Amino acid sequence: MAEPGEFELIARLFAPLAKGQPGALGLTDDVALIDLPPGRSLAITTDALVAGVHFRPEDPPDRIAQKAVRVNLSDLAAKGARPIGLLQAVAFPIGIGFAWIEAYAKGLGQDLDRFNVPLIGGDTVVTPGPFTVTITALGEIETGRALLRSGARKGDRIWVSGTLGDAALGLMVLKGGLAQLDAESKAHLVARYQLPTPRLELGRALRGLANAAMDISDGLVGDLAHIGATSRLGAVIEQDSLPLSPASRAALSADRRLIDQVLGGGDDYELLFTADPDADPAFKALSGRLGLPLTAIGRMVEGEGVRVVDAAGDPVAVTMTGYRHL
Amino acid sequence: MAEPGEFELIARLFAPLAKGQPGALGLTDDVALIDLPPGRSLAITTDALVAGVHFRPEDPPDRIAQKAVRVNLSDLAAKGARPIGLLQAVAFPIGIGFAWIEAYAKGLGQDLDRFNVPLIGGDTVVTPGPFTVTITALGEIETGRALLRSGARKGDRIWVSGTLGDAALGLMVLKGGLAQLDAESKAHLVARYQLPTPRLELGRALRGLANAAMDISDGLVGDLAHIGATSRLGAVIEQDSLPLSPASRAALSADRRLIDQVLGGGDDYELLFTADPDADPAFKALSGRLGLPLTAIGRMVEGEGVRVVDAAGDPVAVTMTGYRHL
Repeated sequence: MAEPGEFELIARLFAPLAKGQPGALGLTDDVALIDLPPGRSLAITTDALVAGVHFRPEDPPDRIAQKAVRVNLSDLAAKGARPIGLLQAVAFPIGIGFAWIEAYAKGLGQDLDRFNVPLIGGDTVVTPGPFTVTITALGEIETGRALLRSGARKGDRIWVSGTLGDAALGLMVLKGGLAQLDAESKAHLVARYQLPTPRLELGRALRGLANAAMDISDGLVGDLAHIGATSRLGAVIEQDSLPLSPASRAALSADRRLIDQVLGGGDDYELLFTADPDADPAFKALSGRLGLPLTAIGRMVEGEGVRVVDAAGDPVAVTMTGYRHL
Repeated sequence: MAEPGEFELIARLFAPLAKGQPGALGLTDDVALIDLPPGRSLAITTDALVAGVHFRPEDPPDRIAQKAVRVNLSDLAAKGARPIGLLQAVAFPIGIGFAWIEAYAKGLGQDLDRFNVPLIGGDTVVTPGPFTVTITALGEIETGRALLRSGARKGDRIWVSGTLGDAALGLMVLKGGLAQLDAESKAHLVARYQLPTPRLELGRALRGLANAAMDISDGLVGDLAHIGATSRLGAVIEQDSLPLSPASRAALSADRRLIDQVLGGGDDYELLFTADPDADPAFKALSGRLGLPLTAIGRMVEGEGVRVVDAAGDPVAVTMTGYRHL
């Protein structure tokens, strides 16, 4: 079977994903047209994923599509924005075959439905290199209410959603590591690596509660350093407070050095945020309402840099701060 | 020298390009925040360029950056939109070296200055494959006034800006073809291939004058077919009316078959638009004001498909309608 051309791919596989957004113009024009309600700002982000760098080429194509969608939605979630559309520029390797592309498009469509976001535009090209997808996500946020990295205040408590380190440990499983774990734990960790959950509802709820927020894509310590740098503050993390899944806990009990993956491993896409301690009760209530753990892990302090301390308050050496994908 | 990391590249080379747009947040946050004035819609487009597909890997890095900027701005121009910002997701091959990236960033910065558009966000990754850049361009347009492909009316005159076929012939020169041309003609054609000019001022002026518009990226006949299909009309092109540069004219006088490059060759990024014949005088005046040729090349008619006719009105066979890059 001949390779389908760009226009055929768009018409057959991608144009149906533009339903529900008239401004997408059915993906048949040069641009998409988007209107914002009065009092709203556009929040926009773009993330590129490359096979062999950000995911393994042998990962299932539907999960690759969904990871690309989710890492972008996660950026919107971290700012408290509501997603309103996605653009996708996708480079398919020559000869990848229609079945792969079809499975990719199916996964993409499932996530667009799940998160109720239309595809509003894009570009479809071929590449002599690895599969590469760049998604640009658009959201709307009440003007002036976006949660920025730069808003942290001295004395703020530092919070994280969910559990940390799962994705990095999941990647180790995919590479044949953590052989001692049971199958269920391994599957949990791998799913967390391949299929992050953008914390959209949490992000919306943080508007007015949190002072600063971002998502954890490159690892806790490195990402918290960005909040510190833009807010001109330092941060202290209490290592024993870090929230772990049962699977991660099992892995760490077998090898304590894996704490490095919790402190520095990326791809968890949980939210990292800071807030005045007066808001503690609000976060407890919010955690219950969302069914999502919210854990206080430290404090913003004067100075600069991120320090990790143990139960006795003694500093812990952090060996893995700048996450390297794969 | 060690390869600089993502954050260093952003801070040293790309963050300075975000000046003039507070919503870019200095490229230090997860998103950019954009406000639109009342009564304006956002126009947004994304285009990916891959080395070895959309340009030659040995092309100068500053021109590669500028081509990526310009093909995206061209989409905004075709809709009558004013550019307000760009996002850039760029995948650098491992080991490409800092000097190449620096030259690329310099070219990018020159064009952002030239077109007065800030860089508002992006992503910087590595790839084991070819250099790949995806630019997302944002523009603003008075709500309801965007020039769509679907707006053509029966009896509309078909217009193009500038000259056609230069870029496709320029690519032939780069591949060692058209050896009989003089050096000046060759340089002209190559420059048109490597460095298109987005017709932003023309696009703004077409608001209210043209009924349909798009830019010519894939070739005149193929692109006009998109206007025809979305407008549910056919089109007739008078071959002898096609505007040629002196360099193209010289090439065609040596080999008449090169008319195929004029009809079907891509990458010219001129505007293709349709308008009521009553607007003829307005276009003549506009052409003089902009110092840019505007040429009527045919008519929108009932039916479907694009027909090319010679001076006697007889059909001309078109052999190259779907442009293949490189």
